[in-house]
Amino acid sequence: MVDSGALDVLTEDECYRLMGEVPIGRIVFIDQTLPAVQPVNFVMERQTVVIRTAPRSRLAIAAAGTVVAFETDELAEIPSRRAWSVVAVGRATEITEPEELDSARRLGLRPWAAGRKDYYLRITIELISGRMLPGRQ
Amino acid sequence: MVDSGALDVLTEDECYRLMGEVPIGRIVFIDQTLPAVQPVNFVMERQTVVIRTAPRSRLAIAAAGTVVAFETDELAEIPSRRAWSVVAVGRATEITEPEELDSARRLGLRPWAAGRKDYYLRITIELISGRMLPGRQ
Repeated sequence: MVDSGALDVLTEDECYRLMGEVPIGRIVFIDQTLPAVQPVNFVMERQTVVIRTAPRSRLAIAAAGTVVAFETDELAEIPSRRAWSVVAVGRATEITEPEELDSARRLGLRPWAAGRKDYYLRITIELISGRMLPGRQ
Repeated sequence: MVDSGALDVLTEDECYRLMGEVPIGRIVFIDQTLPAVQPVNFVMERQTVVIRTAPRSRLAIAAAGTVVAFETDELAEIPSRRAWSVVAVGRATEITEPEELDSARRLGLRPWAAGRKDYYLRITIELISGRMLPGRQ
Protein backbone atom coordinates (compact mmCIF):
# COMPACT_ATOMS: atom_id res chain seq x y z
CA MET A 1 0.00 0.00 0.00
CA VAL A 2 1.27 3.44 -0.89
CA ASP A 3 0.02 6.70 0.62
CA SER A 4 -0.67 9.98 -1.18
CA GLY A 5 2.98 11.00 -0.72
CA ALA A 6 4.27 7.83 -2.42
CA LEU A 7 5.46 6.34 0.86
CA ASP A 8 4.87 2.70 1.75
CA VAL A 9 2.26 2.38 4.48
CA LEU A 10 3.39 0.02 7.23
CA THR A 11 1.11 -2.57 8.83
CA GLU A 12 0.37 -2.37 12.58
CA ASP A 13 2.70 -5.32 13.21
CA GLU A 14 5.52 -3.63 11.27
CA CYS A 15 4.96 -0.42 13.26
CA TYR A 16 5.25 -2.23 16.59
CA ARG A 17 8.29 -4.19 15.43
CA LEU A 18 10.16 -1.12 14.17
CA MET A 19 9.40 1.07 17.17
CA GLY A 20 10.58 -1.75 19.43
CA GLU A 21 14.00 -1.62 17.74
CA VAL A 22 14.90 1.96 18.69
CA PRO A 23 15.67 3.28 22.18
CA ILE A 24 14.59 6.90 21.69
CA GLY A 25 11.26 8.45 20.75
CA ARG A 26 9.60 11.83 20.95
CA ILE A 27 6.56 12.41 23.10
CA VAL A 28 4.23 15.07 21.75
CA PHE A 29 1.72 16.69 24.07
CA ILE A 30 -0.23 19.85 24.60
CA ASP A 31 1.13 22.21 27.26
CA GLN A 32 -1.07 25.21 28.04
CA THR A 33 -2.82 25.00 24.65
CA LEU A 34 0.51 24.87 22.73
CA PRO A 35 2.04 21.84 21.02
CA ALA A 36 5.12 20.55 22.88
CA VAL A 37 7.65 17.81 22.14
CA GLN A 38 10.42 16.12 24.07
CA PRO A 39 12.85 13.31 23.19
CA VAL A 40 12.84 10.44 25.68
CA ASN A 41 14.24 6.98 26.16
CA PHE A 42 11.50 4.39 26.23
CA VAL A 43 10.81 0.69 26.48
CA MET A 44 7.85 -1.23 25.05
CA GLU A 45 5.90 -3.33 27.54
CA ARG A 46 3.05 -5.41 26.08
CA GLN A 47 2.46 -2.91 23.23
CA THR A 48 2.47 0.08 25.58
CA VAL A 49 5.22 2.71 25.76
CA VAL A 50 6.90 3.19 29.15
CA ILE A 51 8.82 6.41 29.83
CA ARG A 52 10.75 7.46 32.92
CA THR A 53 10.89 11.07 33.98
CA ALA A 54 11.12 13.30 37.07
CA PRO A 55 8.01 13.70 39.26
CA ARG A 56 7.70 17.44 38.75
CA SER A 57 8.92 17.57 35.15
CA ARG A 58 7.00 19.47 32.50
CA LEU A 59 6.20 16.08 30.96
CA ALA A 60 4.76 14.68 34.20
CA ILE A 61 2.70 17.80 34.78
CA ALA A 62 1.39 18.44 31.26
CA ALA A 63 1.21 15.00 29.63
CA ALA A 64 -0.13 12.70 32.36
CA GLY A 65 -3.84 12.04 31.94
CA THR A 66 -3.96 13.42 28.39
CA VAL A 67 -3.86 11.99 24.88
CA VAL A 68 -0.34 12.24 23.46
CA ALA A 69 1.43 11.29 20.25
CA PHE A 70 4.65 9.30 20.31
CA GLU A 71 6.97 9.36 17.33
CA THR A 72 9.89 7.07 16.54
CA ASP A 73 11.94 7.02 13.39
CA GLU A 74 15.15 6.14 11.61
CA LEU A 75 15.71 8.80 9.01
CA ALA A 76 19.40 8.66 8.11
CA GLU A 77 20.28 10.50 4.92
CA ILE A 78 22.34 7.50 3.82
CA PRO A 79 20.47 6.02 0.82
CA SER A 80 21.41 2.45 1.72
CA ARG A 81 19.81 2.67 5.15
CA ARG A 82 16.09 2.20 5.74
CA ALA A 83 14.03 5.30 6.40
CA TRP A 84 10.80 5.01 8.36
CA SER A 85 8.65 6.86 10.86
CA VAL A 86 5.97 5.50 13.19
CA VAL A 87 3.48 7.62 15.15
CA ALA A 88 1.40 6.16 17.97
CA VAL A 89 -1.44 8.04 19.64
CA GLY A 90 -2.88 7.17 23.03
CA ARG A 91 -3.54 8.19 26.58
CA ALA A 92 -0.56 8.78 28.89
CA THR A 93 -1.09 7.78 32.52
CA GLU A 94 1.19 7.77 35.53
CA ILE A 95 2.06 4.27 36.70
CA THR A 96 1.03 4.18 40.36
CA GLU A 97 -0.11 0.61 40.99
CA PRO A 98 2.74 -1.03 43.07
CA GLU A 99 3.03 -4.17 40.95
CA GLU A 100 3.06 -2.24 37.70
CA LEU A 101 5.61 0.17 39.16
CA ASP A 102 7.90 -2.71 40.19
CA SER A 103 7.60 -4.09 36.68
CA ALA A 104 8.38 -0.68 35.14
CA ARG A 105 11.44 -0.27 37.39
CA ARG A 106 12.75 -3.61 36.15
CA LEU A 107 12.62 -2.53 32.49
CA GLY A 108 16.10 -1.03 32.80
CA LEU A 109 14.94 2.36 31.54
CA ARG A 110 17.71 4.88 31.60
CA PRO A 111 16.48 8.47 31.51
CA TRP A 112 18.07 10.67 28.85
CA ALA A 113 19.77 12.74 31.55
CA ALA A 114 20.80 12.22 35.14
CA GLY A 115 18.73 13.30 38.13
CA ARG A 116 16.14 11.69 40.39
CA LYS A 117 13.56 10.25 38.02
CA ASP A 118 11.20 7.86 39.70
CA TYR A 119 8.08 8.80 37.81
CA TYR A 120 6.85 6.38 35.16
CA LEU A 121 4.41 7.22 32.41
CA ARG A 122 2.65 4.62 30.30
CA ILE A 123 1.17 5.38 26.87
CA THR A 124 -1.64 2.97 26.03
CA ILE A 125 -1.66 3.01 22.25
CA GLU A 126 -5.04 3.49 20.59
CA LEU A 127 -3.85 4.28 17.07
CA ILE A 128 -0.59 3.48 15.33
CA SER A 129 0.55 4.26 11.81
CA GLY A 130 3.83 4.32 9.96
CA ARG A 131 5.46 5.11 6.67
CA MET A 132 8.63 3.90 4.98
CA LEU A 133 10.50 5.30 2.00
CA PRO A 134 10.20 2.70 -0.79
CA GLY A 135 13.36 0.79 -1.58
CA ARG A 136 15.04 1.84 1.66
CA GLN A 137 14.42 -1.17 3.89
CA MET B 1 23.99 26.52 32.56
CA VAL B 2 22.48 23.17 33.54
CA ASP B 3 18.76 22.40 33.68
CA SER B 4 16.88 20.39 36.34
CA GLY B 5 17.60 17.18 34.41
CA ALA B 6 21.41 17.79 34.44
CA LEU B 7 21.46 18.66 30.74
CA ASP B 8 23.43 21.61 29.39
CA VAL B 9 21.12 24.39 28.29
CA LEU B 10 22.06 25.72 24.84
CA THR B 11 22.11 29.40 23.98
CA GLU B 12 19.80 30.72 21.24
CA ASP B 13 22.78 31.03 18.88
CA GLU B 14 23.80 27.43 19.53
CA CYS B 15 20.20 26.29 18.92
CA TYR B 16 20.07 28.01 15.53
CA ARG B 17 23.52 26.73 14.56
CA LEU B 18 22.73 23.11 15.46
CA MET B 19 19.31 23.02 13.83
CA GLY B 20 20.87 24.48 10.68
CA GLU B 21 23.18 21.46 10.48
CA VAL B 22 20.52 18.76 10.10
CA PRO B 23 18.20 18.19 7.13
CA ILE B 24 15.27 16.60 8.95
CA GLY B 25 13.01 17.87 11.72
CA ARG B 26 9.64 16.99 13.18
CA ILE B 27 6.74 19.39 12.97
CA VAL B 28 4.35 19.12 15.89
CA PHE B 29 0.85 20.50 15.54
CA ILE B 30 -2.66 20.08 16.82
CA ASP B 31 -5.07 18.26 14.51
CA GLN B 32 -8.69 18.19 15.66
CA THR B 33 -7.70 18.77 19.31
CA LEU B 34 -5.14 15.93 19.26
CA PRO B 35 -1.34 16.29 19.21
CA ALA B 36 0.16 15.28 15.85
CA VAL B 37 3.73 14.96 14.58
CA GLN B 38 5.34 14.44 11.20
CA PRO B 39 8.99 14.21 10.09
CA VAL B 40 9.89 16.62 7.30
CA ASN B 41 12.88 17.88 5.36
CA PHE B 42 13.47 21.56 6.01
CA VAL B 43 15.75 24.48 5.25
CA MET B 44 16.47 27.50 7.41
CA GLU B 45 15.88 30.86 5.75
CA ARG B 46 16.77 33.90 7.85
CA GLN B 47 16.03 32.10 11.14
CA THR B 48 12.71 30.78 9.89
CA VAL B 49 11.97 27.14 9.04
CA VAL B 50 10.77 26.42 5.49
CA ILE B 51 8.96 23.13 4.77
CA ARG B 52 7.60 21.80 1.51
CA THR B 53 4.49 19.68 1.40
CA ALA B 54 1.47 18.85 -0.76
CA PRO B 55 -1.35 21.42 -1.00
CA ARG B 56 -4.01 19.18 0.49
CA SER B 57 -1.78 17.32 2.96
CA ARG B 58 -2.81 16.90 6.59
CA LEU B 59 0.06 19.24 7.43
CA ALA B 60 -1.15 21.98 5.08
CA ILE B 61 -4.71 21.69 6.34
CA ALA B 62 -4.09 21.39 10.09
CA ALA B 63 -0.86 23.30 10.72
CA ALA B 64 -1.12 26.40 8.50
CA GLY B 65 -2.17 29.44 10.48
CA THR B 66 -1.53 27.81 13.86
CA VAL B 67 1.27 27.79 16.43
CA VAL B 68 3.44 24.69 15.98
CA ALA B 69 6.53 23.20 17.59
CA PHE B 70 9.47 22.09 15.49
CA GLU B 71 11.96 19.61 16.89
CA THR B 72 15.41 18.71 15.59
CA ASP B 73 17.95 16.47 17.24
CA GLU B 74 20.98 14.24 16.96
CA LEU B 75 20.55 11.52 19.52
CA ALA B 76 22.81 8.67 18.45
CA GLU B 77 23.44 6.09 21.15
CA ILE B 78 27.17 6.21 20.34
CA PRO B 79 28.84 7.80 23.41
CA SER B 80 31.47 9.59 21.32
CA ARG B 81 28.86 11.46 19.28
CA ARG B 82 27.17 14.62 20.49
CA ALA B 83 23.58 14.33 21.69
CA TRP B 84 21.33 17.35 21.53
CA SER B 85 17.74 18.40 20.91
CA VAL B 86 16.35 21.79 19.92
CA VAL B 87 12.67 22.77 20.00
CA ALA B 88 11.40 25.91 18.27
CA VAL B 89 7.88 27.22 18.70
CA GLY B 90 6.19 29.66 16.35
CA ARG B 91 3.41 30.35 13.91
CA ALA B 92 3.26 28.36 10.68
CA THR B 93 2.00 30.25 7.65
CA GLU B 94 1.60 29.30 4.01
CA ILE B 95 4.04 31.15 1.75
CA THR B 96 1.83 32.85 -0.85
CA GLU B 97 3.64 36.10 -1.72
CA PRO B 98 5.19 35.52 -5.23
CA GLU B 99 8.68 36.80 -4.36
CA GLU B 100 8.82 34.76 -1.16
CA LEU B 101 7.53 31.72 -3.04
CA ASP B 102 10.24 32.10 -5.70
CA SER B 103 12.83 32.34 -2.94
CA ALA B 104 11.41 29.23 -1.21
CA ARG B 105 11.46 27.27 -4.49
CA ARG B 106 15.15 28.11 -4.88
CA LEU B 107 16.05 26.63 -1.48
CA GLY B 108 16.43 23.19 -3.06
CA LEU B 109 14.00 21.60 -0.62
CA ARG B 110 13.42 17.97 -1.42
CA PRO B 111 10.24 16.61 0.13
CA TRP B 112 10.64 13.42 2.15
CA ALA B 113 8.62 11.52 -0.44
CA ALA B 114 7.76 11.95 -4.09
CA GLY B 115 4.58 13.54 -5.41
CA ARG B 116 3.43 17.01 -6.38
CA LYS B 117 4.42 19.23 -3.49
CA ASP B 118 4.27 22.87 -4.32
CA TYR B 119 3.00 24.13 -1.00
CA TYR B 120 5.49 25.90 1.24
CA LEU B 121 5.04 26.50 4.93
CA ARG B 122 7.14 28.92 6.93
CA ILE B 123 7.55 28.73 10.70
CA THR B 124 8.40 32.10 12.20
CA ILE B 125 10.21 31.19 15.39
CA GLU B 126 9.06 32.96 18.54
CA LEU B 127 10.72 30.75 21.12
CA ILE B 128 13.71 28.43 20.81
CA SER B 129 15.38 26.24 23.39
CA GLY B 130 17.78 23.34 23.38
CA ARG B 131 19.56 20.84 25.56
CA MET B 132 22.76 18.88 25.16
CA LEU B 133 24.06 15.87 27.08
CA PRO B 134 27.16 17.09 28.95
CA GLY B 135 30.46 15.77 27.63
CA ARG B 136 28.89 14.67 24.33
CA GLN B 137 29.72 17.56 22.01
